[in-house]
Amino acid sequence: MTEGIRMNVQEITAAECYAKLASSGFGRLACARDNQPYVVPIYFAVKGEAIYAFSLAGQKVDWMRENPRVCLEADWMSGSNDWTSVVILGRYEELTDTPEFYNERLQALASLQTRPMWWEPGTSSLSSANERPEKGQAPVFFRILVDRVTGYRAAPQPPDGVAPHE
Amino acid sequence: MTEGIRMNVQEITAAECYAKLASSGFGRLACARDNQPYVVPIYFAVKGEAIYAFSLAGQKVDWMRENPRVCLEADWMSGSNDWTSVVILGRYEELTDTPEFYNERLQALASLQTRPMWWEPGTSSLSSANERPEKGQAPVFFRILVDRVTGYRAAPQPPDGVAPHE
Repeated sequence: MTEGIRMNVQEITAAECYAKLASSGFGRLACARDNQPYVVPIYFAVKGEAIYAFSLAGQKVDWMRENPRVCLEADWMSGSNDWTSVVILGRYEELTDTPEFYNERLQALASLQTRPMWWEPGTSSLSSANERPEKGQAPVFFRILVDRVTGYRAAPQPPDGVAPHE
Repeated sequence: MTEGIRMNVQEITAAECYAKLASSGFGRLACARDNQPYVVPIYFAVKGEAIYAFSLAGQKVDWMRENPRVCLEADWMSGSNDWTSVVILGRYEELTDTPEFYNERLQALASLQTRPMWWEPGTSSLSSANERPEKGQAPVFFRILVDRVTGYRAAPQPPDGVAPHE
């Protein structure tokens, strides 16, 4: 047990949520089909209030094309009583490789290409030992349109009777 | 760009997946309602091939009672080309506080109670500064019955022409 350890949990603003998301660019994306949820880790770029990412074609993309409702979660755990977490409910929107989305694609690529697995972290649609997708496996580019963002921050609190700065 | 960095992605066995999950006891749990997925961080205990956890009553529990299909994801990122990830598809089963589940509850409690927020990391159903749920807010105890578990491990690979141990 951890008697005496308390923490102060507070909701953070939407602006703070986006700033946290932008600072790490890593989280977990959930999609669903026939009410079966499916979660994978994902790298993303944040621009304003939209989230941009790439994925190889596969189960996740198939599911999001069929049902665009998604959830993006990110957390930063310094300890079990010292953490921040952000949850976004939103919709998947595929951005085709056309002039219309040229700028978004370029900006997202610039932000994400420093990561070797920016197109598919945590899962493998690759056979093995590939640095990037083969021809014909071009990553799908998409954004998440945010419907709701919520975030919480927890910090340890001194025991009763001990005021801060004493 | 990261020219020259390659990695070797391999599927790991179910036994390796459970061992990784047991070693950290932390991941993200997704549920879904009306095909809207919802993801939150979660602490859990692993016993054999079942996952045990607690949650405060609230949106997540409401959704899982209505639709027991869940997905549990955990990942360990040493770097973007050096990681392990595990994804479980399974079903939520609530374990009532009755003699039938006395042993499971006791074992899960023993495994989880070292963490101050074992009943609800990453979200706040608490007003603030509470160490544990108020009376009447007893955490719901549940397990995830695993239908499918898959895991991948990636490790950096030397550039072409450099054999290991040379």
